[in-house]
Amino acid sequence: MTERILSIDTFDIRFPTSRHRDGSDAMNPFPDYSAAYIVLRTTAGAEGHGFVFTVGRGTEIEVAAIRSLAKMIIGQPVDELVADPGVLSQRLIGDSQIRWLGPAKGVVHMAAGGLVNAVWDLAARRAGQPLWRLLAALSPEQLVAQIDWRYLRDALTPDEALDLLRNATGGRAEREKVLLDEGYPAYTTTPGWLGYDDEKLARLCAEAVEDGYRLIKLKVGANLADDVRRLAIARRAVGPEVRLAVDANQIWGVPDAIGWMRELAPFDPYWIEEPTSPDDILGHAAIRAALAPVKVATGEHAHNAVMFKQLLQAGAVDVVQIDACRVGGVNENLAILLLAAKFGVPVCPHAGGVGLCELVQHLAMFDFVAVSGTTQDRAIEYVDHLHEHFTDPVHIENGRYVAPRAAGMSAEMRPATLTAYRYPDGPEWTAA
Amino acid sequence: MTERILSIDTFDIRFPTSRHRDGSDAMNPFPDYSAAYIVLRTTAGAEGHGFVFTVGRGTEIEVAAIRSLAKMIIGQPVDELVADPGVLSQRLIGDSQIRWLGPAKGVVHMAAGGLVNAVWDLAARRAGQPLWRLLAALSPEQLVAQIDWRYLRDALTPDEALDLLRNATGGRAEREKVLLDEGYPAYTTTPGWLGYDDEKLARLCAEAVEDGYRLIKLKVGANLADDVRRLAIARRAVGPEVRLAVDANQIWGVPDAIGWMRELAPFDPYWIEEPTSPDDILGHAAIRAALAPVKVATGEHAHNAVMFKQLLQAGAVDVVQIDACRVGGVNENLAILLLAAKFGVPVCPHAGGVGLCELVQHLAMFDFVAVSGTTQDRAIEYVDHLHEHFTDPVHIENGRYVAPRAAGMSAEMRPATLTAYRYPDGPEWTAA
Repeated sequence: MTERILSIDTFDIRFPTSRHRDGSDAMNPFPDYSAAYIVLRTTAGAEGHGFVFTVGRGTEIEVAAIRSLAKMIIGQPVDELVADPGVLSQRLIGDSQIRWLGPAKGVVHMAAGGLVNAVWDLAARRAGQPLWRLLAALSPEQLVAQIDWRYLRDALTPDEALDLLRNATGGRAEREKVLLDEGYPAYTTTPGWLGYDDEKLARLCAEAVEDGYRLIKLKVGANLADDVRRLAIARRAVGPEVRLAVDANQIWGVPDAIGWMRELAPFDPYWIEEPTSPDDILGHAAIRAALAPVKVATGEHAHNAVMFKQLLQAGAVDVVQIDACRVGGVNENLAILLLAAKFGVPVCPHAGGVGLCELVQHLAMFDFVAVSGTTQDRAIEYVDHLHEHFTDPVHIENGRYVAPRAAGMSAEMRPATLTAYRYPDGPEWTAA
Repeated sequence: MTERILSIDTFDIRFPTSRHRDGSDAMNPFPDYSAAYIVLRTTAGAEGHGFVFTVGRGTEIEVAAIRSLAKMIIGQPVDELVADPGVLSQRLIGDSQIRWLGPAKGVVHMAAGGLVNAVWDLAARRAGQPLWRLLAALSPEQLVAQIDWRYLRDALTPDEALDLLRNATGGRAEREKVLLDEGYPAYTTTPGWLGYDDEKLARLCAEAVEDGYRLIKLKVGANLADDVRRLAIARRAVGPEVRLAVDANQIWGVPDAIGWMRELAPFDPYWIEEPTSPDDILGHAAIRAALAPVKVATGEHAHNAVMFKQLLQAGAVDVVQIDACRVGGVNENLAILLLAAKFGVPVCPHAGGVGLCELVQHLAMFDFVAVSGTTQDRAIEYVDHLHEHFTDPVHIENGRYVAPRAAGMSAEMRPATLTAYRYPDGPEWTAA
């Protein structure tokens, strides 16, 4: 009997992180890291897990969107689905009625991405491979066929993408060995949350250097005098060689960003992340031109490949920050990795939150093995929150992500977590 | 006792328009025009109505988002709310947790816009004024205070906006009289849906000219040979003087748009609307440069003021098409009207669907009286669908919108409609 998708269950999972101000930044002083969580089951008993990362209120809206889109997957034959998730990706994103609510952005796009990722998790589990390795074993032709090219050809044609991928096939085996032996560089945001006091900042910065990190990120943008003081503390703690990036989480307009960052220049910031609206491509280009050699980084809120295309076309970014849960899933992130490779801009994935490190490591590692072929000036964000809730949590050694060996996308939360943190009726919430 | 917001009811209202292919275009062959409908009631028995226009599936997601945001309004004092809806607008759009699902885009942004519009409807009803007139009576200072300037100052400062508005105060009374006497120009999309056959197209084009329209719009982009034939038919039917615009509803990439439109050039198209992804600012700029003197129009899917800002900064559009239900409500549309005025680009609002004509006429008329001061090269889209469901429907005379006199934003649907078309349990759906 043909194996089919039997059920898709959704869960509103919230962690009360705001109680300790973990994750606090200029735009979001009190986040409760959360997930609209997806479990997809087949008639043969196989599972695929996925989720959309959220920060508290509104997770119920994301759950509603996933439930609406899930109807389009129930009953689908599994062999076809996992052989070519690009078909599903385009059907979910292109639905002629639901696309009015986007198109390709916000709640409905993230819901599509969560479901697409769950199908890739299923595909990798069935193949007995970690996702990064499954992707890296696909042919250039198979990879290019996973992408919706409609709006991308003016920046990158499928033929150019094929050339890029073919050029990278040579060293795949060697790079896979390097990755398995040495892991992939990480950077840490753990020391830099706005809600932490000066003593904690200094201590965590020093610890990060001891732990092997060469890039540390601090949140800025709430108060200039505080930022100057905190950056001075951090620079003293890490010395002149370790890179210090700063992240404004969209707090500024274009002129504010330029003025504020000039005050922070004495502390040699490596990049300024999200200096303004994530939609403001021309604004990022203006900020980059004004602040060079300080780099401009963005992407965690860039809602689709068309936005990344323009950030690259406009010369608006030095660092592309993909996110595993913002765009339409693995397929759209393949397009973004190829665009970044074409323009020669390094990708440093956004992570942290809950489960973002677990998911996005697969994309960065695939990029190293099969697309860009390098980890030069690249690192995956790392924050040491909430990994204990996953069955295959990320593992960091000496400031590097250890390549995951288990089959899948590392997306699965522990069953006890799905019970305890379910909102609003799990015991962690009813007890509070 | 202080009057407060007592309740906010939401309705999933869908019209089975796909049965006759009304509204069919290249990206959406079978839309069911719908609305996530909002009724806000105060403790004194006053009402405000609003809605988010949708096209069928997914309306339930929009309803879920409205319900989540509505919690932030229940219990608010009405006098404060209607005296300064900008405060509410910024609170809804800026909620530190829900903004993760945007920010300022898609499902959650449209939900905020629907609620903000409902509050403006309440404000205008309490003032006993049609909304356009309430807005046109505000001082330049009051209008400027209604706008979130965070991301706009690099293109337009509050001081520049004040100057624009002050320069327009002089003729307000005269223009209000002209508007009341003569109405506001309309253009029609009724003849041009892709699902209509050639005979119907020719007949409706001729009727539109007889009815006084000087601009008619046709859908294109599904099949080039069909488009060439249909444009030839339309041009023959309307003669050389009436303007023919075409609308591709995002079907093309940038090179396709340029190539396809060159084939349609012999029929003298006035503008090409939505030639590519609504997110592709640089793409629109490239298309405009390649196709001049054919104009480029977009905006119905431009998700916030930052996108309009860039379309104007990049010289990407000749025509700005605001939509009453896409952005964060009246407040954000005020910003967009001021940006368009600053850049000297005419605004031709998107309408049609269900209730979009009713809402957006207020914004265009306000613009004429108090911002741009002109109707030159401006017209509001008109489609003769579904107006019978409103208590204060738009009225067209000789190709012009008659200025509404009733208090409010013309947003109220008839009670019988809310019963009959409720999805999925209203009799119009259970009978089908």
